[in-house]
Amino acid sequence: MPAPRLPALVLMLAAVGDGAAGLALPHAVLDAARARYACKSFDPSRPVEPAQLRLLADAARAAPSSFNVQPWRCVLVSSVEGRAALARGMLGANGQRVLEAPLVAVFAADLRACGRAARVAALAAAVGAPAAFVSRLPFYVSLFSSGYRLGLLKWPLFVAKRLAMALLGVLRAVPKLSTPETWAFKNAMPAVTHLMLQAAELGLATLPMEGFDEGRVRAALAIPRRYAIPCVVAVGHASERAAAAPRAGRFEFDELFAAETFGAPWVPPPAPLPAA
Amino acid sequence: MPAPRLPALVLMLAAVGDGAAGLALPHAVLDAARARYACKSFDPSRPVEPAQLRLLADAARAAPSSFNVQPWRCVLVSSVEGRAALARGMLGANGQRVLEAPLVAVFAADLRACGRAARVAALAAAVGAPAAFVSRLPFYVSLFSSGYRLGLLKWPLFVAKRLAMALLGVLRAVPKLSTPETWAFKNAMPAVTHLMLQAAELGLATLPMEGFDEGRVRAALAIPRRYAIPCVVAVGHASERAAAAPRAGRFEFDELFAAETFGAPWVPPPAPLPAA
Repeated sequence: MPAPRLPALVLMLAAVGDGAAGLALPHAVLDAARARYACKSFDPSRPVEPAQLRLLADAARAAPSSFNVQPWRCVLVSSVEGRAALARGMLGANGQRVLEAPLVAVFAADLRACGRAARVAALAAAVGAPAAFVSRLPFYVSLFSSGYRLGLLKWPLFVAKRLAMALLGVLRAVPKLSTPETWAFKNAMPAVTHLMLQAAELGLATLPMEGFDEGRVRAALAIPRRYAIPCVVAVGHASERAAAAPRAGRFEFDELFAAETFGAPWVPPPAPLPAA
Repeated sequence: MPAPRLPALVLMLAAVGDGAAGLALPHAVLDAARARYACKSFDPSRPVEPAQLRLLADAARAAPSSFNVQPWRCVLVSSVEGRAALARGMLGANGQRVLEAPLVAVFAADLRACGRAARVAALAAAVGAPAAFVSRLPFYVSLFSSGYRLGLLKWPLFVAKRLAMALLGVLRAVPKLSTPETWAFKNAMPAVTHLMLQAAELGLATLPMEGFDEGRVRAALAIPRRYAIPCVVAVGHASERAAAAPRAGRFEFDELFAAETFGAPWVPPPAPLPAA
């Protein structure tokens, strides 16, 4: 019996059509971004459903990374014992949050990205990437990620590479080189972000945490030393208290954006949506 | 005259109600994540509209960061001269992409996050955060970000802090400490990711690039040395060629996810949506 709902639908459609041009722009991502907040306590009685979990994993898996290296793994901890072991590696109130949240996603970033180059080249070849690009991929991955299988030689080589780039940089443009951890974290965070945004759209609450002891978390989950841990994300349903807590604002546009050069203020165009 | 469309709408609503439970889950974020791809060439004749740009900025601004420090700035470069100057700092084909794309978002990550602590404390106080937390915020920001106003003393202090944490870590859980660049990049990437996802939902193409000369990009945009550059994102409309190019796949679930501990394979629940 859907008939009684139709007039309301017609009105909604008419409103969309009638509004300012901007109102017709899709903005579900922005809505999810504004719905997301750092949830400080969870309702332990409400699980994350399997279909929800699958959407979170699908969203994380779709995340971009340099050269498609995907230098991350995510350990999904939901058992009571697993979360209890993990909680002992968390700092302060984060321990309690890990015990309350039905799901904890521990992201591990690969410090030896070279180990993935062959697989990445295969993925590129599978969609018909030019052979020259495929064959150069392992070199590019080494160059940018600084993640070698070289044990103690890794750091002297890193310094030598930086020095060489600094010299070469006088003559021509050279790539920016970061440490293996910086590069791996940079490339793991889009997956973390996708997971949190999809969770927000599903009405799930999340808490990204950096307050943990990496060695203890690694030991609790048997994460090898090849991986560093950028972020631990608790996922679940907000407790009533957390859902009602006020949410911190953001810096003004002129503190975050600039136009054309760093110092020049950017004047934001009118918002097509009301401010959150 | 909306009448002719109503039966189709009724069918659509009925289909949503009738389908597997998972079909009722919202998934616009996943759709945007799957629509996004690394666009290798742009149509220079099609601009980013002001209302679109505003949604991109709103989405980036809503991004999470540790302690809400928001340690990033985004320089929005759209002038022909600005992009020409920027292009000279890009490597290889990235120079051409910066010339073609109507908008280039250059993200700068703050290596001296302490400089934001007072503002962040004010934002927290404004929403009624406990005074004890507000007063401790600058300490937490220093501890985690390693970003001090100390010039050459910064690095000896960083090493001393790591050593102290390693000793203290024998007795109790201690936080993971990263370099200022690692921490700043980690906290800038959610904003980069929000921008790209909102762009994808708007039908805009993006290309995140790390192939650039940081010194030259910094000089072109007058970005101070306090900031490092994690990512340069070209934004616009895909050229026909780029839109039609095949897109690289992702690793399998068992290469990216684990259940409970790092080594244990995770069996994904059935997908509520067809695979991309």
